[in-house]
Amino acid sequence: MKTVIVTGIPGTGKSTVCNLFREMSEKEGTPATIINYGTVTQELLRANGQTVHRDEMRKSTMDSQRLFQKKAAEAISRKIENLSGIVVIDTHMAIRTPQGYMPGLPRHVLEVLQPELFVLIEANQDEISTRRSKDTVRRRDDSNEETVKEELQISRLMAGACAVLTGAPVKMVINANGRQEEAARELMRITGVADNV
Amino acid sequence: MKTVIVTGIPGTGKSTVCNLFREMSEKEGTPATIINYGTVTQELLRANGQTVHRDEMRKSTMDSQRLFQKKAAEAISRKIENLSGIVVIDTHMAIRTPQGYMPGLPRHVLEVLQPELFVLIEANQDEISTRRSKDTVRRRDDSNEETVKEELQISRLMAGACAVLTGAPVKMVINANGRQEEAARELMRITGVADNV
Amino acid sequence: MKTVIVTGIPGTGKSTVCNLFREMSEKEGTPATIINYGTVTQELLRANGQTVHRDEMRKSTMDSQRLFQKKAAEAISRKIENLSGIVVIDTHMAIRTPQGYMPGLPRHVLEVLQPELFVLIEANQDEISTRRSKDTVRRRDDSNEETVKEELQISRLMAGACAVLTGAPVKMVINANGRQEEAARELMRITGVADNV
Repeated sequence: MKTVIVTGIPGTGKSTVCNLFREMSEKEGTPATIINYGTVTQELLRANGQTVHRDEMRKSTMDSQRLFQKKAAEAISRKIENLSGIVVIDTHMAIRTPQGYMPGLPRHVLEVLQPELFVLIEANQDEISTRRSKDTVRRRDDSNEETVKEELQISRLMAGACAVLTGAPVKMVINANGRQEEAARELMRITGVADNV
Repeated sequence: MKTVIVTGIPGTGKSTVCNLFREMSEKEGTPATIINYGTVTQELLRANGQTVHRDEMRKSTMDSQRLFQKKAAEAISRKIENLSGIVVIDTHMAIRTPQGYMPGLPRHVLEVLQPELFVLIEANQDEISTRRSKDTVRRRDDSNEETVKEELQISRLMAGACAVLTGAPVKMVINANGRQEEAARELMRITGVADNV
Repeated sequence: MKTVIVTGIPGTGKSTVCNLFREMSEKEGTPATIINYGTVTQELLRANGQTVHRDEMRKSTMDSQRLFQKKAAEAISRKIENLSGIVVIDTHMAIRTPQGYMPGLPRHVLEVLQPELFVLIEANQDEISTRRSKDTVRRRDDSNEETVKEELQISRLMAGACAVLTGAPVKMVINANGRQEEAARELMRITGVADNV
């Protein structure tokens, strides 16, 4: 497997799991690259004279969102061509904005990225709420439990549509408090980096 | 924003919210047009020598449904070209028929309409059931709570697929009893008709 | 109606309902053919020198899965052309594998099969768990209730995406313990084989 898309709503610990996965995979001899979709989009915005706070971006206007979403997919696709080993694209399935849930992986992005697997990092609703309310460095969305529940649901249903569109499977991986290594190990198993880690 | 699709299962008060939205938007100086997908389909059927009761239509045979669904999308698309301001297409995400839930916005319709936003008008299950059981003018589907719950669920999941296919976001708007103006005002905010109404 | 796709997670009694449907339809004078997607795929694998246990197949590697999934769709499509009466394709909406839920009916398969209706055979969670735990002939997946609940959910949401992609409706048919004939009769009604059976 080469290209894996790892998604998760804010507070699931997605980026932590991705980074652990990279470290552990490299120890096993498989080079792994994590590409953060949001960071690539920010770089493109900055190169175009715009600058946005990472979480603010999720709330910017839809039209520029969509334009840069496409451009970022193309940039990532070019990057992947030159990489060996496994590439994890760290992104969101559904992005909560004032205009509603924007799909992080719409059809035109999927056609560019051609992923082989979708991973949904999930966690307990309470744990997500708690992590969100404690987060002071990055601005966080509502830590309300109903909001968290809804975000988890919308992510799953958009993932189902992504699977049907591409033919790639969707795997839910639970990231429980203090068990990030377990989640990273599961990611190694399902991507074929290691069989019995 | 120009084209917004507003959907809602029977009993959510969708059409009331759409009409209020139009009135309130015009007061704010933005012309707004509500196009009822069902009415356009009926006109096409009538012009073809067929006549069907509005709610009966949801139960007519699938093949003619699909044919006129496509024709209606094309007619609406031509209408929109000549309109200024904002256009709201009032329709259903999933239509309960004896053959199952028919998608109100299948891919071939979405490709014609090219919407920028999907709105799901939702309401409390009890309130929907009550509104349905009181409705004597229009023939209504089952007011059973399990049915209402299932229709809300199927609508959300088809909306997720619509979002992934088009790249447009999905916004849930709650229409609580006696708060139609609040729902209409939210519609104004998310469509950009007004920032701080 | 000619081509109907009938899906159901293991333990819903999908194949029993399909076979009853065939027998009952033929008594009514409508020839009916049941094509098992898994069996067609197995035959293709065997013809290519590979052999896999039917349930094992759901866990085989993704790449060969996808290749044979497409080939099987093409073989089924050729078969259907030469059949009269009604054709039921017996398959899965979502296949649980170690790499996650693989879509049984991805876009490239749907474009080949062009189905007119999706049926989801569903049953009570407890009944599915019990049927799974009793099944000793075929190797069964986890009979855990959370697993069953998740499989039912993922099947529904992939079905929603299939409906939006094709325009065909999705019908849920309940197969309760001891009421297989009722489920088969409902299948006859919705496919138009019989109006008032």
